Amino acid sequence: MNNFVVKKRLSKLTMYNKKQKDQHSTPDHRTELSELGEFALIDRLTKRVKIKNPGTLKGIGDDAAVIELKDKVLLLSTDLLIEGVHFDLTYMPLKHLGYKAAVVNFSDIAAMNGIPKQITVSIAVSNRFSVEALEELYGGILLACEKYKVDLVGGDTSSSVKGLMISITVTGEAVKNEIIYRNGAKEGDLLCVTGDLGAAYIGLLILEREKQAYKADPDMQPELIDYEYVLQRQLKPEARTDVYNLLKGIGVQPTSMIDISDGLASEILHICKESGVGCKLYEEKIPIDTQVRNLAMEFRIVPAVCALSGGEDYELLFTINQRDVEKIRLVQGISIIGHIVPKSEGQKLITPDGLSIDLTAQGWDAMRKRVS
Amino acid sequence: MNNFVVKKRLSKLTMYNKKQKDQHSTPDHRTELSELGEFALIDRLTKRVKIKNPGTLKGIGDDAAVIELKDKVLLLSTDLLIEGVHFDLTYMPLKHLGYKAAVVNFSDIAAMNGIPKQITVSIAVSNRFSVEALEELYGGILLACEKYKVDLVGGDTSSSVKGLMISITVTGEAVKNEIIYRNGAKEGDLLCVTGDLGAAYIGLLILEREKQAYKADPDMQPELIDYEYVLQRQLKPEARTDVYNLLKGIGVQPTSMIDISDGLASEILHICKESGVGCKLYEEKIPIDTQVRNLAMEFRIVPAVCALSGGEDYELLFTINQRDVEKIRLVQGISIIGHIVPKSEGQKLITPDGLSIDLTAQGWDAMRKRVS
Repeated sequence: MNNFVVKKRLSKLTMYNKKQKDQHSTPDHRTELSELGEFALIDRLTKRVKIKNPGTLKGIGDDAAVIELKDKVLLLSTDLLIEGVHFDLTYMPLKHLGYKAAVVNFSDIAAMNGIPKQITVSIAVSNRFSVEALEELYGGILLACEKYKVDLVGGDTSSSVKGLMISITVTGEAVKNEIIYRNGAKEGDLLCVTGDLGAAYIGLLILEREKQAYKADPDMQPELIDYEYVLQRQLKPEARTDVYNLLKGIGVQPTSMIDISDGLASEILHICKESGVGCKLYEEKIPIDTQVRNLAMEFRIVPAVCALSGGEDYELLFTINQRDVEKIRLVQGISIIGHIVPKSEGQKLITPDGLSIDLTAQGWDAMRKRVS
Repeated sequence: MNNFVVKKRLSKLTMYNKKQKDQHSTPDHRTELSELGEFALIDRLTKRVKIKNPGTLKGIGDDAAVIELKDKVLLLSTDLLIEGVHFDLTYMPLKHLGYKAAVVNFSDIAAMNGIPKQITVSIAVSNRFSVEALEELYGGILLACEKYKVDLVGGDTSSSVKGLMISITVTGEAVKNEIIYRNGAKEGDLLCVTGDLGAAYIGLLILEREKQAYKADPDMQPELIDYEYVLQRQLKPEARTDVYNLLKGIGVQPTSMIDISDGLASEILHICKESGVGCKLYEEKIPIDTQVRNLAMEFRIVPAVCALSGGEDYELLFTINQRDVEKIRLVQGISIIGHIVPKSEGQKLITPDGLSIDLTAQGWDAMRKRVS
């Protein structure tokens, strides 16, 4: 496995505690996929699956899973991850990849103000991968399921002509009148965001830099210990499923919500488009960690650009009615970063020196080009 | 597109009526995927999507779809189709591929005695494909959704390093106590199957034969007109969602059920394994169309083998209590093909001359080898 070396190099990142590590680790043995049939492979990968939710009436093992919702409504979302497009196994250990693949789906459910409950996992792999490698991947997925109390209830496995492909579908439960769509933002509402932004993108830049250095000199010692926070944000993001209870606890129902996967600018524009409104976003109010600020300068990028166009932060962006402003101010870890204006005023970023410029979604690809 | 020639060759198969053809056809123009961004591509592919089910509260356009079930329970299933593994675009037109990809998922819901309601569609494609090609694929998916009254509610699109990959997740509704699992077969129950078997496999053999002939001499006229039934079964299968009402109408609740995707032998063994029982299957009772019998002989295969190991028939295999035998006998298109015995007696195929041999799941790959 070409990610083995890098995995060792990343060993200073204590992403899993000892107990979990032992539980999921496999002996240093390679079993070819061709040694197992499809059904045997599924059995082996899913033997550790335990059902946690009473609503999961039937998980893996029939033509379909069976799920009971009672008075709740169902949320359904799906994500596709392709090797060479969405992830690079040179610096992404398979277990982290599995964890992240699950979590980004949970994040979509959190963005609707629901609770993730079940996932199905379909993977296609070339024979470059061993059974043990897939067990690592599933180990990460199951670790995420464990942490978020989600049941793995089905899926499909297949060979691929080239590379690794992961398709995950997630279900969630929500109370019908608590669901928050992207289209509910109103003029005068305040724009809020959880946590801090831009760290996942800086983590990616660090990993890309180390990859280049490693290519040039494989004996070089990696310098990763100083970057734990940003690397965690890139390699092992978390979904903000806690925000549901947090907002409920202070009696605030956002008017619109979305998770930040493509970058703050892109997500704000989604909300504005779906709600038919404009916005003013204040650059200096965007929450950015000090380490991210420093590293951004090192990479010669304006820190706010990491937040605006970097993506993969999986924080939640939402709007609230102005009457809720005092309740929100009492909560640590939520920042008010702007407000909603009429559509005719456009979507604007206000710089620290008061300039008003059009907000554009450059997204991840454009960022990449700008950086390299 | 390399499937264009073959599509013309297949033009004698009147798989879509004129009206549908006009509605979905695109001008002879190639738009590169790179000309559209991801969001614009999704908009273009999904602009024809219309919500049909009142339970679909929100479809495409937010972080997740929202689905209301009220007193029903949810069924959830997923399937992965990889170019070069599951389909060959040399003889599989993209519209048929889309139709089939959707229908095989609906079949999983039918196999639980539920009604399919929503799907999500994720696709990864290389730049070998044009936007128009993807519209053809979606045209087929939407045609299936139209026919089965299913809503397309979400998905993901991505570039791939190589080839085409389709991941579909389907939801269905079921009445909780009407769900039929694989594990309910009891000693003395009768084994039943809908429709006839083996045709999809013979259709595949015909297509493979024509492909080879075409490779040898591209000017040769294809001979497909005589094979309409078996080609339809391979290229445009249908899901037996009608069986739900059919069995309800005669007051029969099967004790176990599964759909036939991998071949009759494999599916019977699944039911026996999950139910902890044995079976006797009578070769001469397996329903096989006359054309399939004749073509099997032409290919020098025992006809029953096409049914046992061919797969892709998407008929339903189920068991019923003996007390329901007279009700079932009155229904056209259902065959009683054997019965359930104690586990200790094993899973046996009884040949026409009375020999009892072990039933084994050779599956599709093995068959392929045997044939070529």
